[in-house]
Order: sequence, then C-alpha cells, then structure tokens
Amino acid sequence: MAKEIERKFLVKDDVWRSLAQGTKYRQGYLNSTKERVVRVRTINDKGYLTIKGITVGATRSEFEYEIPLEDTDFMLDHLCEQYLIEKNRYKIKMGDLIWEVDEFFGRNDGLIVAEVELTSEDQEFEKPEWIGEEVTADPRYFNSNLVKDPYTEW
Amino acid sequence: MAKEIERKFLVKDDVWRSLAQGTKYRQGYLNSTKERVVRVRTINDKGYLTIKGITVGATRSEFEYEIPLEDTDFMLDHLCEQYLIEKNRYKIKMGDLIWEVDEFFGRNDGLIVAEVELTSEDQEFEKPEWIGEEVTADPRYFNSNLVKDPYTEW
Repeated sequence: MAKEIERKFLVKDDVWRSLAQGTKYRQGYLNSTKERVVRVRTINDKGYLTIKGITVGATRSEFEYEIPLEDTDFMLDHLCEQYLIEKNRYKIKMGDLIWEVDEFFGRNDGLIVAEVELTSEDQEFEKPEWIGEEVTADPRYFNSNLVKDPYTEW
Repeated sequence: MAKEIERKFLVKDDVWRSLAQGTKYRQGYLNSTKERVVRVRTINDKGYLTIKGITVGATRSEFEYEIPLEDTDFMLDHLCEQYLIEKNRYKIKMGDLIWEVDEFFGRNDGLIVAEVELTSEDQEFEKPEWIGEEVTADPRYFNSNLVKDPYTEW
C-alpha cells in the first residue's frame, strides 16, 4: 500500500503549457464514495485499477494494479458510473518535485488544476509563479466528485 | 473478461459434507450495488480483486485479478463495507460439473447454498439428490446482498 500525500492548486496563467508535453488520461469510477474510491483509468495504452481509502488531512491509502487495456476499456464503456473524466496531464519537474497539471475536457472543460506529491504533510516547497489558490481541502475538485458534479455545471 | 453463468440452489440435507473438504473464504465489498460489484476476497493465503457487471438472466461479466494478500487483508479490515462474508466452500465434482457448496458463518450462520457453473443458460444437467429449491433469481442470496441484509436477520 502506498500513502499518497498531495496538495492541489488552481493555476494563474498558461506559463506551464510550454514546460511539458501532455499525456491523455481517461478514467471512471466503480465507486466514487469518499470511503472507498475504485478508479479505472487508461493512460495512453495502459490500463490501471486503483483503490483509495478515506482522506485524512492530505494523506490517503492507495493500491494500484496494472490490468489489461481491454479490461479497462470494457469497464469504462459499460460498468463505470457516468460520466467519465477526460484530461491531459502535464508532468513538470521543478527542483526536486514534480508538478502534475491536469487540463480537463468534456463536462469538466475549462478546469485546470496542478498537484504536487509530497513525502510528508508538513514538507516545505517552492511554488512556481504560475501556481494560484490552494484547493486541497475542497472536495469539489476531487476527480471522483467531478464525475457527478462537473465543472461546467458549477 | 469472463462470462459467468451460474444457477444457485438450497440444499436438502448434509449428504454433500462427506463429498469434499472445505476451503476458507473471507470476502468483502468495495461496492455492492448490482450495476458494479467490486469484491475483495481471500481464499486460504491468496488475495483476489473481482469486478462484476449487472446480471442479465443467469449471465454476468466478470474480471478477476490476483493481488497481494497483504493488500486484500488491509482492504477487508479497513476499506470494505461492513459486514464481511465468512464461509467455507466445498467443491464437489458430479459428472462433468463442479458443484460449489457454500456454508456461511458469522452474520449468515446457518445458510448453505449450492452453485453450479454452466457454459450456456439452457444447458441441461443432472441435479444431485441433496439439491433443493432453486434460488438463482432471488437477490437476497447474492453474496453482495448478504453483507447488508444477512441471513440471521431474515
């Protein structure tokens, strides 16, 4: 089991676009309740099944398994809750940290968030100038909630 | 993806007990809705994660992955819906078919059901004399429902 410690921010401008290439993500949920998230995801041509426990502070238990792409495609098309999340992810290395910028499409079109993974909850880090307001604690920005309550309907 | 075609019956008496050794199963659910069951299971010292779609007639799409036992133990103890299912399973070969008899414990104590897996919905087969009433179509006997509405409370 991994422990995931992440902080999430909005972005101020488009500076991040010139810093990385985007990778296509398509994901859905077999359960999107906060106690037991079950996520199905394709990243380019690979499939993953991920189980996450409840978030305590910025920390969450997480189990991830690579599974056949044809399985994830079937689950996304036939078994997952509607709607799916479609986004491009840009991984941007800044010093020792990697910032992940997610640019959403479809029903979450227009939403862009940046996440950084930390090794402890109180770890200090430098914020790039294009990083805006922190939204770590706002559940509306959880991908599992963007399925049910998408950004274009806020 | 596998297609699972199963018929389920109650048992009339204890004759089946002399026909096989039981194996210990412990299982729980990360989702127990009929549209997208996500099951966590340990069989002796192996762990499995299983996803099942909606049942149409006696047929259901099913994906199963073996995962580390320490992962399933954590999920069963900390992430799954309460309560867990505990049972012994007896696999009994009769002609070309394998009958699986599940003897439940804990909150489903006293319940015993026998299942047979078929290759088509209209396959004919011989019922052993210890097989009783068919309950294939009764959702109360789904393991995913026995978690929420256990036999001892019927």
